[in-house]
Amino acid sequence: MSKFWEDYPQIVEELDNVNTLIKKRIQTREKYIEESILPMVEGGGKMLRPAFLLLAGKFGNYAPEKMQNLAAVVEMLHLATLVHDDIIDEAKLRRGCETIQSKYGKEYAVYIGDFLFCQCLLMLSEYDYTTENMRDLSKAIARICMSEIKQYSLRYAKNMNLRNYIRIISGKTAALFAMSFYGGAKETQCDEKLARLLGKIGYQIGMAFQIIDDLLDYKGDTALLGKSAQRDLKRGYYTLPLIYALEKDKEKEIPQILASCSFTNEEVEKIIQLVQKYDGLTKAQSVADRYVFKAFENIKKLPDCESKEVLSVVIPKLLQRRY
Amino acid sequence: MSKFWEDYPQIVEELDNVNTLIKKRIQTREKYIEESILPMVEGGGKMLRPAFLLLAGKFGNYAPEKMQNLAAVVEMLHLATLVHDDIIDEAKLRRGCETIQSKYGKEYAVYIGDFLFCQCLLMLSEYDYTTENMRDLSKAIARICMSEIKQYSLRYAKNMNLRNYIRIISGKTAALFAMSFYGGAKETQCDEKLARLLGKIGYQIGMAFQIIDDLLDYKGDTALLGKSAQRDLKRGYYTLPLIYALEKDKEKEIPQILASCSFTNEEVEKIIQLVQKYDGLTKAQSVADRYVFKAFENIKKLPDCESKEVLSVVIPKLLQRRY
Repeated sequence: MSKFWEDYPQIVEELDNVNTLIKKRIQTREKYIEESILPMVEGGGKMLRPAFLLLAGKFGNYAPEKMQNLAAVVEMLHLATLVHDDIIDEAKLRRGCETIQSKYGKEYAVYIGDFLFCQCLLMLSEYDYTTENMRDLSKAIARICMSEIKQYSLRYAKNMNLRNYIRIISGKTAALFAMSFYGGAKETQCDEKLARLLGKIGYQIGMAFQIIDDLLDYKGDTALLGKSAQRDLKRGYYTLPLIYALEKDKEKEIPQILASCSFTNEEVEKIIQLVQKYDGLTKAQSVADRYVFKAFENIKKLPDCESKEVLSVVIPKLLQRRY
Repeated sequence: MSKFWEDYPQIVEELDNVNTLIKKRIQTREKYIEESILPMVEGGGKMLRPAFLLLAGKFGNYAPEKMQNLAAVVEMLHLATLVHDDIIDEAKLRRGCETIQSKYGKEYAVYIGDFLFCQCLLMLSEYDYTTENMRDLSKAIARICMSEIKQYSLRYAKNMNLRNYIRIISGKTAALFAMSFYGGAKETQCDEKLARLLGKIGYQIGMAFQIIDDLLDYKGDTALLGKSAQRDLKRGYYTLPLIYALEKDKEKEIPQILASCSFTNEEVEKIIQLVQKYDGLTKAQSVADRYVFKAFENIKKLPDCESKEVLSVVIPKLLQRRY
């Protein structure tokens, strides 16, 4: 696990338990399964979704075992989507390790992702979770899939716009963040109003998190991020900084380069310069800031407790990743 | 739907309802989803798993709507595994139509399979199914994944043997057949003994069905089967006829050809001849016949009712596909 939670030993302990649950689930007769998934589990992710689910759960009647199991489910779901995303993106690195698709082949990665999905279903069926939570979780995953499909279908699209971008990231990232907060609260019998407030916070954090992630693609450095810089651009995913820059680029300098659909490194450099010239980064950052601001306004409304304090400290740390 | 059930109008009607449920589920804002899945739904599959689930359910207190929803879940699960299998197998045709991976690309097919999985989860969460059924269904899918992984890892394997073969097909095919029978019965409050008997019948039918399917690969013809003949062999999947022939081939004629791992059409023809020479087909058929026999012995033990009669007529029809 990453050092992100190191100031909170109790959360670290609980997340360790979550990881232990995941590790148990990937032990099967087929040794390859464990061997291929383990590096991801041990690869130093921040485990944001399970941590948020546990923190939200602490606003209600917290039952550690049941909640950690549900936290393991959201993390495994996230892992499953990563394994499949890496196939689509032909990604070589993930959390600093070689991806499953790169090491074992795309075919194998398809089944490993499916296996993780199945284990989630199995874990859900072993505890008596609320029907509501089952439904919300299913909806969140369905939204992730649909958004990935939308994103994929809009590669290199000339009509990519703010509206499509917001729809894609709210599905592919914010939905599972929102579900982690909301589901954690619902499972511990928080009242609907509080659960919704937490869900909203999750959504806003998720949106800010993804926009900042997309920003980093225009500034990022492989060593720091553990993934290839400017990856999105080369794959034809036009994200917020580019969308804003395109709006201001009346001379059509950027569209001329984009027209080729496969960019040399020099062309990528040129696009990045133009995105800066046309204020793409600043404007995207200001959208992220707005989501962060809204999340904070909502965190203030939460009832006082340890979880609230943790969120107040951890969220800024998370969202100020301006490497 | 295929004409397989045409003698039973009530089943046809119910399966039509199941298909309608599936079609509703694939209607989303993203038009590509419906467009790509629809040909599979309308492509003339026999809908064996949902039909068996409904037939098994009729041994108990049958509630049509709830059962048809569960039947739609098992069919969609099956469709999801087909979409992902076609990626691995680089299959061009399925049910006589171009596969999703061939028409839209492997990347897209990954997400379409995932989308179908999610919809299953969503459908399960919308009805109040027994926790037991949820668990069994999850286990069946997990077994399918693990068996596919095992099968994939044993491609071109010199140590492929009867034991591994049985393990693979019992996971990838018989588990979901067994679950359809058992789950159908459990959901309509059949007693445990009857549900288990039905589950056993499902398992035996599933085993026979898969062995016969594998046999057809050694006799099959593209036009009749709607999929490429000798596909398994070319992919390095060594199935029962070959496993038996290898046992008897003391001169090591077959291993000499297999050593190359990529076969010309002439070599495939040669292998098929050798499999016949060494009684591979006859012996594999006799294993299938044993499963069919056992299934029939068990069907006789079922309480008399319409479902029992249907099963007695339909199972031989299904398992005598000696094209």
